[in-house]
Amino acid sequence: MSPYQEVKAEILAIGDELLYGQIIDTNSHWISQELDKIGVRVVRRTTVGDSREAILEAFAAAEKRADIILMTGGLGPTNDDLTKPLLAEYFNCEIELVPEALKAVRTFFEKRGRVLTDLNRLQAHLPTKCTYIPNVLGTAPGMWFQENGTIWMSMPGVPHEMKKLMEDHVIPRIKSNFELPIIYHQVVKTVGIGESWLADVIKDWEKELPPHIKLAYLPSLGQVRLRLTAFGDNFQNLENDVAQQLQSLLPLIDKYVYGYNQDTLEETVGRLLKNHGKTVALAESCSGGYISHMITSIPGSSAYFQGSMVPYHNQFKHALLNVDELTLQTKGAVSEETIIQMAEHIRLKLNADYGLASSGIAGPGGGWAEKPVGTVWIACSDGQTTVTKKLQLTQDRMLNIQLTAIAGLNLLRTCIIGQTE
Amino acid sequence: MSPYQEVKAEILAIGDELLYGQIIDTNSHWISQELDKIGVRVVRRTTVGDSREAILEAFAAAEKRADIILMTGGLGPTNDDLTKPLLAEYFNCEIELVPEALKAVRTFFEKRGRVLTDLNRLQAHLPTKCTYIPNVLGTAPGMWFQENGTIWMSMPGVPHEMKKLMEDHVIPRIKSNFELPIIYHQVVKTVGIGESWLADVIKDWEKELPPHIKLAYLPSLGQVRLRLTAFGDNFQNLENDVAQQLQSLLPLIDKYVYGYNQDTLEETVGRLLKNHGKTVALAESCSGGYISHMITSIPGSSAYFQGSMVPYHNQFKHALLNVDELTLQTKGAVSEETIIQMAEHIRLKLNADYGLASSGIAGPGGGWAEKPVGTVWIACSDGQTTVTKKLQLTQDRMLNIQLTAIAGLNLLRTCIIGQTE
Repeated sequence: MSPYQEVKAEILAIGDELLYGQIIDTNSHWISQELDKIGVRVVRRTTVGDSREAILEAFAAAEKRADIILMTGGLGPTNDDLTKPLLAEYFNCEIELVPEALKAVRTFFEKRGRVLTDLNRLQAHLPTKCTYIPNVLGTAPGMWFQENGTIWMSMPGVPHEMKKLMEDHVIPRIKSNFELPIIYHQVVKTVGIGESWLADVIKDWEKELPPHIKLAYLPSLGQVRLRLTAFGDNFQNLENDVAQQLQSLLPLIDKYVYGYNQDTLEETVGRLLKNHGKTVALAESCSGGYISHMITSIPGSSAYFQGSMVPYHNQFKHALLNVDELTLQTKGAVSEETIIQMAEHIRLKLNADYGLASSGIAGPGGGWAEKPVGTVWIACSDGQTTVTKKLQLTQDRMLNIQLTAIAGLNLLRTCIIGQTE
Repeated sequence: MSPYQEVKAEILAIGDELLYGQIIDTNSHWISQELDKIGVRVVRRTTVGDSREAILEAFAAAEKRADIILMTGGLGPTNDDLTKPLLAEYFNCEIELVPEALKAVRTFFEKRGRVLTDLNRLQAHLPTKCTYIPNVLGTAPGMWFQENGTIWMSMPGVPHEMKKLMEDHVIPRIKSNFELPIIYHQVVKTVGIGESWLADVIKDWEKELPPHIKLAYLPSLGQVRLRLTAFGDNFQNLENDVAQQLQSLLPLIDKYVYGYNQDTLEETVGRLLKNHGKTVALAESCSGGYISHMITSIPGSSAYFQGSMVPYHNQFKHALLNVDELTLQTKGAVSEETIIQMAEHIRLKLNADYGLASSGIAGPGGGWAEKPVGTVWIACSDGQTTVTKKLQLTQDRMLNIQLTAIAGLNLLRTCIIGQTE
């Protein structure tokens, strides 16, 4: 028998604007992920509107199902925000001024040069049965209740305020209140191989996984994440166990692995360029500037990103990038001959170590039998060699742009580490 | 008294992967919006895992609250997908082969050159009390039940399959089953003015709105949507009533209005360029290719997008764009003098009617007292005049990139229609 409690949680999002689809509830998903990481089992997510009956009914139903009830929203100072008065009603207690909370709200406004109104002051009045949890990023405090063996936590619906409360207070408090299992997650991020191919490559390894380590395939556009989750009672042991499994996994798939956990492909490429002291320049046709955007979205990218050109028409591929006119006429813009020149010439033009180029038919128009929509050439040149790759993508323009960018960044990655096929 | 029924709906999302935060439930939000549009009131959204008890309990609770229960997920052919057997159990009926459904599944696989397995064949077995609703984009059929005055609809969790079923079958069926109020929505899309400024400009107009027309402010990054919703019993009348209100609203805010309903700013700019027979070229520094990406994300943009350059360093602003070296040295890259040259020169270089340029400090590093992070210059040149604008944005790199792009596209828009300030 497991020495751990199975701890069940329910997430309760409150607000008419959610039910009517006016705003997206990203909070519930994020809370789900955070609870999963610490071994708390989410058994239900519920969204109700600003209705007394619905909220009270949801409270009572959640209390029957869960050990922990995490609420977001309904904490504004106006009359349509009901969470606080209904919690007081549900727990049969008064709402009183909490001096510490008033001080925090006052400081919040003073810092911003604003005057505290009577309405703002109400934010510091809390149910007497709750523990006041300070919200340093906003004016609605968190409220923590422990009643009849159940933990209740009410948080504001503003995502960054809720996240800060969760990280600083709620997760640590949950951990200290329960004997949670120790869980260790490691995510291996792959690119350039489909889910079923990947599964086939690692199936023998997967069969040999010990029972306390689970594997999940998490596919996203052009990428597959492999998540290893180990359960046990000693964090260090789990970390070692997973590391040992990775030692046998990585040789099977190392050319597809670009990072771990929160790493993104554009970060990884940026880090590789920086670590190798190299720079890159781009000539983007069908990707229309999207690869440049991905690269420059990373802070500090000016250290390795020289710049780019998006010559969307043949005349500019010639005029700006010196792509041979005869090549463009005889082979076309979407050809290996053209993409090689684009990659080589942008590299020289912008004095970069690597030149990365894309040219293709993003669609939905523009394709023909020989070069249907979704035909894309990418190339990466380092001055010595130029590696090219032909992609046959989809019918969808935005997908084709995104998939070209991922394949392009991955081609650059493999060029930098010298692992091109 | 209203002649309409208040029709209540509950949305039920089923799947462990949702509760554990492995995938985001975008379905419930989308369904909320669609139901809101036709005047059905969503009273609750519930997410449960792949557990018999939890699903049956959710069925029973939803039936008490709602006239319509829309379910997504749990329809795969494997054992962990429980929605279908539990619906049969709940409605006390058998699951039998539906020949029409089998034919559809068979056709689906044949079209893709794949063999129908026994597992796939199971998809065509449905509860006898349901009406089979064909899913042309996937293999799990929709199931429609009408039991004891409640409508139940089970749909696959794959978003595009669910949306197609909703649009083709569920929305029309709901409309024909209930006397729904007639609702007419019109969304006015504005850019370049903040929510509170906008509210101040239109407050007198807003006070005079007739009671059957409601106004909602829907802010998003750099933009505010104004949604007018009219309730009544005659669609044509509502359309006329809203059109009349718009006639008095638009003169107040016309320079901020770029479109209606589903229009996006990049589509609007593209349409304006096309209609005026004009082209654009971009010199992007701090926006790093993002404006080019937004423009080229629109199908057919090659008709008006000449191309762009992203000269990320001063040397390339000079070498590629002929920005005067002395200007760069004395005024800096983030200056009105530089941005004017960038806009004018890219226009000439790429033989375009308009040249649009950005240069700024996206952050998080690179700012100083005189030019803090978030300082951005944009300019648009048409060969006669060059309009410039200085923006003072945020501390966040990605926000600054996105806000620069929106402001840049809006500057181009105002230049095309001759409405610059």
